[in-house]
Amino acid sequence: MQGPHRRYNPLMDEWVLVSPHRLKRPWQGQQETPPTDERPPYDPACYLCPGNRRANGAQNPPYTSTFVFTNDFAALLPEAEPFSPASSPLFRAAPVRGTCRVICFSPRHDLTLARMARPDIRRVVDTWCEQYSELARGYRWVQIFENRGAMMGASNPHPHGQIWALDTLPTTPAREDRAQRAYFDAHGKPLLAEYLAAECEQAERLVVENEHWVALVPFWAVWPFETLLLPRRPVRRLPDLNDAERDALADILKRLLTRYDNLFEIDFPYSMGWHNAPGLDEDAPHWVLHAHFYPPLLRSATVRKFLVGFEMLGEPQRDLTAEQAAARLRALSEIHYLEREG
Amino acid sequence: MQGPHRRYNPLMDEWVLVSPHRLKRPWQGQQETPPTDERPPYDPACYLCPGNRRANGAQNPPYTSTFVFTNDFAALLPEAEPFSPASSPLFRAAPVRGTCRVICFSPRHDLTLARMARPDIRRVVDTWCEQYSELARGYRWVQIFENRGAMMGASNPHPHGQIWALDTLPTTPAREDRAQRAYFDAHGKPLLAEYLAAECEQAERLVVENEHWVALVPFWAVWPFETLLLPRRPVRRLPDLNDAERDALADILKRLLTRYDNLFEIDFPYSMGWHNAPGLDEDAPHWVLHAHFYPPLLRSATVRKFLVGFEMLGEPQRDLTAEQAAARLRALSEIHYLEREG
Ligand SMILES: O=P(O)(O)O[C@H]1O[C@H](CO)[C@@H](O)[C@H](O)[C@H]1O
Ligand SMILES: O=P(O)(O)O[C@H]1O[C@H](CO)[C@@H](O)[C@H](O)[C@H]1O
Repeated sequence: MQGPHRRYNPLMDEWVLVSPHRLKRPWQGQQETPPTDERPPYDPACYLCPGNRRANGAQNPPYTSTFVFTNDFAALLPEAEPFSPASSPLFRAAPVRGTCRVICFSPRHDLTLARMARPDIRRVVDTWCEQYSELARGYRWVQIFENRGAMMGASNPHPHGQIWALDTLPTTPAREDRAQRAYFDAHGKPLLAEYLAAECEQAERLVVENEHWVALVPFWAVWPFETLLLPRRPVRRLPDLNDAERDALADILKRLLTRYDNLFEIDFPYSMGWHNAPGLDEDAPHWVLHAHFYPPLLRSATVRKFLVGFEMLGEPQRDLTAEQAAARLRALSEIHYLEREG
Repeated sequence: MQGPHRRYNPLMDEWVLVSPHRLKRPWQGQQETPPTDERPPYDPACYLCPGNRRANGAQNPPYTSTFVFTNDFAALLPEAEPFSPASSPLFRAAPVRGTCRVICFSPRHDLTLARMARPDIRRVVDTWCEQYSELARGYRWVQIFENRGAMMGASNPHPHGQIWALDTLPTTPAREDRAQRAYFDAHGKPLLAEYLAAECEQAERLVVENEHWVALVPFWAVWPFETLLLPRRPVRRLPDLNDAERDALADILKRLLTRYDNLFEIDFPYSMGWHNAPGLDEDAPHWVLHAHFYPPLLRSATVRKFLVGFEMLGEPQRDLTAEQAAARLRALSEIHYLEREG
């Protein structure tokens, strides 16, 4: 499949247009400013560094590992403003209750997940698991994510992620839920477990794996170097992970993110996030826990893929195949370019 | 509704999270480079200017109005490479046939639709209509669109748009088709005709109107200053527009885009495009022709809205209400800031 074709995303019930020949076109559009690697371990002006004051006046504790607090400018609030329901099917609105938290991954301003030591990444994994358990008791959907890099809207380079929890299933997880449920009803097995088995057999889209996890470029990837991270044991939610799986998760995160950074030798920008089965104890045999990584860069540290015009109005389009992207990521070293010897 | 709430998009069957209080947060993230207004009327290095050579060696004619050619690096090609159908529901791919064209709106390198004279915009309208008729004879979906500004992936500032035509209904129009059809089946009237009537009655989301067209911020808008452009007569497709409606379309485009430019006093970036009823003669009583405008800027010429993390993994989130956005656009002048007297 080297000519234009479409691929189907069974998790979202949507298609992507693939135009592998299009990478040949010259790029005369916007050049991004590549992120700089030079950051001090402590930045007195950073609102996330230990001991510093935030915009709303609160002071961070002198934390030494991870640190979680409620977002000072949360998009979701625990109290919903009551309002009268819509009068028309064309003007439907609904109240929403929720909360937004920030997770500092490390006290060190100059690190990234890729450059943290495995035991420290494991602390982030544990924090995700704890936060999930706590928030899923009160909210139906707990979205754990990281926006990495200014190109992805991160307003601070200090290594941190976010959690938005809300009392309803948002649009994207609702679609994934429907698709996984329909597959399970038809085939008696979880979609993502069957998909992982097929990918391991074909091997051409695998990027990195260990005893408990596999990262691959999905057959239906939209972003140039998009990956999907799946557990070998089809668990439903982060807190279900056992000790060995959590260590292995820290390992595969380090290795995947190091490859990403090595691709263009920069702090590789991306948004990533976890899709757990909704809720905490609901039975969900159709759902497998997974993380999506959506990185925008296409050709170099300064040329990104724009999902604009046709992509917004028609459907997403990509310029290299999932197989080509996986092969490039597979060929990279797992030693971070900033830590190479001599 | 001044607190967080969700609104439903009946055209796409999806929701948007609205957090009006969130505009108060300080912005410490990426600053965009504002577009510069200074461009010569003719640029010898531009591959779209009349008489110039393009990357593939072809030479543009000395055109004086609009000029259409097949994209030299088209994402779609008229001949589909045959390949064997998928063996598994998890690995579905399909061949696709299509073509991509570029429409230069004007020979003048320094203009934009907003700054062109109404009769010249009318030429663009006629070109859209002609191109639609021609391409819809051979292709099921004809996506006419414009990516304006480097921030929206435009690789050249010369005023131009694109048309991608393909033999299948892409994901987004397929969703709009389903939703409009279901509404028509249930209510016996087209969704967008009923919606327009209700918006005209409420008036609070209207931006600009004339005898034949209305531009409004949809109740379910995602992008900060997103608008929807609707004809008062519920026609299905661009070629159905009569002479008066085409003149009025040129008029409302000029007025809407001038307001956009005046908002932050820059060449306002956006992606816009037309959604016609699929095909050419298919009966489609459920469908009303419309154009979407998706502009990324939020607070100023240099601060955009990022649809990242939560938006990619959960659902879109916006920081001001549709009503606030409409009020701001309504308050602006229809004299372009570059053409003000004195
Ligand atoms: O063809 P252009 O203008 O160079 O390219 C632009 O528009 C296309 C269609 O929306 C997108 O696929 C590209 O990512 C974008 O950069
Ligand atoms: O909360 P932050 O990191 O300042 O903001 C960033 O992430 C949010 C959640 O994905 C987005 O809504 C914002 O547009 C983005 O700039």
